[in-house]
Amino acid sequence: MSPSLYEPTDPHYAARVRDSFDRQHFMHHIGAIVTAVTPGYCEIELAYRPELTQQHGYFHAGIIGTLADNAGGYAALSLLPPGKEVLTVEYKLNLLRPGEGERLASRGQVLKAGRTLIISQVDVYNIKNGSETLAATALMTLMGVAQKEAV
Amino acid sequence: MSPSLYEPTDPHYAARVRDSFDRQHFMHHIGAIVTAVTPGYCEIELAYRPELTQQHGYFHAGIIGTLADNAGGYAALSLLPPGKEVLTVEYKLNLLRPGEGERLASRGQVLKAGRTLIISQVDVYNIKNGSETLAATALMTLMGVAQKEAV
Amino acid sequence: MSPSLYEPTDPHYAARVRDSFDRQHFMHHIGAIVTAVTPGYCEIELAYRPELTQQHGYFHAGIIGTLADNAGGYAALSLLPPGKEVLTVEYKLNLLRPGEGERLASRGQVLKAGRTLIISQVDVYNIKNGSETLAATALMTLMGVAQKEAV
Amino acid sequence: MSPSLYEPTDPHYAARVRDSFDRQHFMHHIGAIVTAVTPGYCEIELAYRPELTQQHGYFHAGIIGTLADNAGGYAALSLLPPGKEVLTVEYKLNLLRPGEGERLASRGQVLKAGRTLIISQVDVYNIKNGSETLAATALMTLMGVAQKEAV
Repeated sequence: MSPSLYEPTDPHYAARVRDSFDRQHFMHHIGAIVTAVTPGYCEIELAYRPELTQQHGYFHAGIIGTLADNAGGYAALSLLPPGKEVLTVEYKLNLLRPGEGERLASRGQVLKAGRTLIISQVDVYNIKNGSETLAATALMTLMGVAQKEAV
Repeated sequence: MSPSLYEPTDPHYAARVRDSFDRQHFMHHIGAIVTAVTPGYCEIELAYRPELTQQHGYFHAGIIGTLADNAGGYAALSLLPPGKEVLTVEYKLNLLRPGEGERLASRGQVLKAGRTLIISQVDVYNIKNGSETLAATALMTLMGVAQKEAV
Repeated sequence: MSPSLYEPTDPHYAARVRDSFDRQHFMHHIGAIVTAVTPGYCEIELAYRPELTQQHGYFHAGIIGTLADNAGGYAALSLLPPGKEVLTVEYKLNLLRPGEGERLASRGQVLKAGRTLIISQVDVYNIKNGSETLAATALMTLMGVAQKEAV
Repeated sequence: MSPSLYEPTDPHYAARVRDSFDRQHFMHHIGAIVTAVTPGYCEIELAYRPELTQQHGYFHAGIIGTLADNAGGYAALSLLPPGKEVLTVEYKLNLLRPGEGERLASRGQVLKAGRTLIISQVDVYNIKNGSETLAATALMTLMGVAQKEAV
């Protein structure tokens, strides 16, 4: 994806993304880590673990969806001002190939940052023997809300 | 959803669904269970666990997506003949409310069973103090393939 | 779909839906009509015309998408107060069967009416020789905005 | 989007795309034209006409969806062998900005060409005073079928 064209509204956007991520028990539980954050962009990686697989030993589709949701969501959060957080309104995920390899890398990029809604595009890659193949792609809608505010 | 209108092509469809489910490490890992299978329909439930949550203590969206994917997929598998399995081509998930309560119930129903593709609709409910509220809804495309066959 | 559970915020909701619909040149151009509006629900019908078809004489998928978008959108508008209008944020459409018959009927039902966003589900039916078959189904996200307001 | 990486299976792929397009009455009716076809890629343009608008004079969302569907579908068809045609299984469309300007340009690119299914990504641009802005983006699933074959 192309370099980010966005200006962050919060100079501490990266710390805020990482703090939010760290408070997600599920991401910690599966071993996901934030590997990059720039304005409008976030990359999350996850190393292979047998307990994250489906019946053929591939990464479970639910894990791929989880990583897509988080990369797209944190790409959006990186553009929001302090005191705001992001809710996933919806996402659509196409699974292109089985999820496999040493790890998955999920890369989310904001396509449009509106006043209320943010649209992100996410690609999830299999990383295997040093090469990358596209495993899944997603298109997401997110909403910025005041912290604790409901939809 | 309305009662199923489908005839199974395999009298052992329910056992086949449960066998496949049992071989998914990730579903076992999070504690999900199949609570109902009829032709073209599958229900999966998951009890609350702190390690499955996001930063506010709600069920993680990735968990909701995982349950949606599986309920829709196994609804589809219930209609396939022996020797076939099901791949998720894509799904679209709308998150309507935070996932909370004692447990989630994900209910997938086949809308159309074609020669190659199967379309499922899935609702995921929060079950809390004995009442149900709709937390998410999904629309999915699945493909029946010979076991081990690639897309 | 089940009877509506919604209370309109505007007693003149039906007139408002029909007024908005009448101002859409494209809907007039193709011959679409609003055949029912209740709170949270809207039905739009369209008679067959050769100029609305694809290469095999079926209704064009773009026409099916157009009807889905409008039925879901007006189902949402029926719940909004005066001075508000509705924007389609996104929709996902599964085409289940070729669009054919004397006419199409697109039926949109609100699944969740939030403070900012509204989620609608839409079914588009082929009506042929007096019977109906499901041609397409859609899941949509809409946003209520002040008239003329941007996203 | 990046230059195509696909090899066509039919040297006459471009003529086949244009022939199919020409047989779509609806595309002719609204004035859409194919402006580019390369292997795995198709661009369709449509000049502004008042009868294609919604209540504020913008291009109707149904028109944007129609162009997205066709650009993604013909991008897919360009890779199929003779005797095959393409069916849209489903698409998801995010509307990012109102559709306006002198014309719309819809650009579809194949992301993955599988044995049975093809996944396309489509961007629809507003072209106004010589500059382009992204109006909508879509993610689609298509299926190659023998001509006349059903889903």
